[in-house]
Amino acid sequence: MPDSHEKLEKLTKYAITPPALAAPPAAFSHGVRKGGILQVAGQVGFLPAAEGQAPTLAGPSLREQTLQTFANVKAVLEAGGAGWDDVVMLRVHLTDTAHFAEMNKIYDTYFGKQGLKEEPAARTTVYVGLPEGILIEIDALAVLG
Amino acid sequence: MPDSHEKLEKLTKYAITPPALAAPPAAFSHGVRKGGILQVAGQVGFLPAAEGQAPTLAGPSLREQTLQTFANVKAVLEAGGAGWDDVVMLRVHLTDTAHFAEMNKIYDTYFGKQGLKEEPAARTTVYVGLPEGILIEIDALAVLG
Amino acid sequence: MPDSHEKLEKLTKYAITPPALAAPPAAFSHGVRKGGILQVAGQVGFLPAAEGQAPTLAGPSLREQTLQTFANVKAVLEAGGAGWDDVVMLRVHLTDTAHFAEMNKIYDTYFGKQGLKEEPAARTTVYVGLPEGILIEIDALAVLG
Repeated sequence: MPDSHEKLEKLTKYAITPPALAAPPAAFSHGVRKGGILQVAGQVGFLPAAEGQAPTLAGPSLREQTLQTFANVKAVLEAGGAGWDDVVMLRVHLTDTAHFAEMNKIYDTYFGKQGLKEEPAARTTVYVGLPEGILIEIDALAVLG
Repeated sequence: MPDSHEKLEKLTKYAITPPALAAPPAAFSHGVRKGGILQVAGQVGFLPAAEGQAPTLAGPSLREQTLQTFANVKAVLEAGGAGWDDVVMLRVHLTDTAHFAEMNKIYDTYFGKQGLKEEPAARTTVYVGLPEGILIEIDALAVLG
Repeated sequence: MPDSHEKLEKLTKYAITPPALAAPPAAFSHGVRKGGILQVAGQVGFLPAAEGQAPTLAGPSLREQTLQTFANVKAVLEAGGAGWDDVVMLRVHLTDTAHFAEMNKIYDTYFGKQGLKEEPAARTTVYVGLPEGILIEIDALAVLG
């Protein structure tokens, strides 16, 4: 099975740990980069970490949480040497189909202001359960180079 | 963190926009290709786009929607220079666990007819909420080469 | 669209089929490797396959199912020439937000014992529906090299 005939370049895996982000609640990384692949873990609308405090949401509204979630995904991308232009996929998890239209508006306004030079990423949006009070969770796959 | 010792080939990111597909409801691409990675956004059972009309489902049934969803994923793959044989992962979102057996039958029949030369892709199936009337959403990750 | 100016190395796609795992319920692979990408399909807590028997869960508890699911993901990774150190993303699907804390404890203990040399993978956890009795499903993306 292992394809010994295809030579794989030796790559190092880097954890991406932006200092501003609340520490993950378990032994996972906010982001990982290996070779040209950068994977951002599911981010929610937690404010920048405050020493000794539990993670706090940017606010109860979809708008506050979505913008903070974007900021957190961006922080991971940038700490990993990437940016929005490198993202090929955003996976958006909402809790309520009634939030779809508003999220799309926030999404379009946000990315309209990011000054992207490349085409927009692909996206999947699904409706799932999330811990109480959390309205949105987003993860991202980026390809660098 | 950024691995300056690993040289990354300069790659261009391409949006994939099959003319037949309904325009995305926000600033995302139906598919994106960068280097050897092709990501297909979440597709549902919308019929080919008709100028000036809102997206319309192929039908109310799981069967109609699943086959149209496959056709839409395939359209993105082909517009990006790929095909089913390049897909490594299909992420299937259903709304009802009672649909699993029927979806598997449709799935097996469909891929049995696609004349694949390579082994089948991996797959995850989960049950989520989707906008009213939509019974299935599928996205795909392909590796070209 | 197809970037004819970027030469893609010719790659072979391999299905990964660990003999211990229950056969997939449809025409998909437990894992796929192509070039440096290894995708593990959604795994659940099914015990090693027994000839002529339907797949059986390791037990009704979150703990039993989580540990068996990890074992199944690991079996796919190893059959594909990889290991936990190569995983960049774990996608964890739970059915109940009340399971989050316990899953994190099991997660941390399990990976603490795996003797990882690399940084931990990224992770997304969402709450979805799963077939009756199944409490957890996990898939994984690995980058080899």
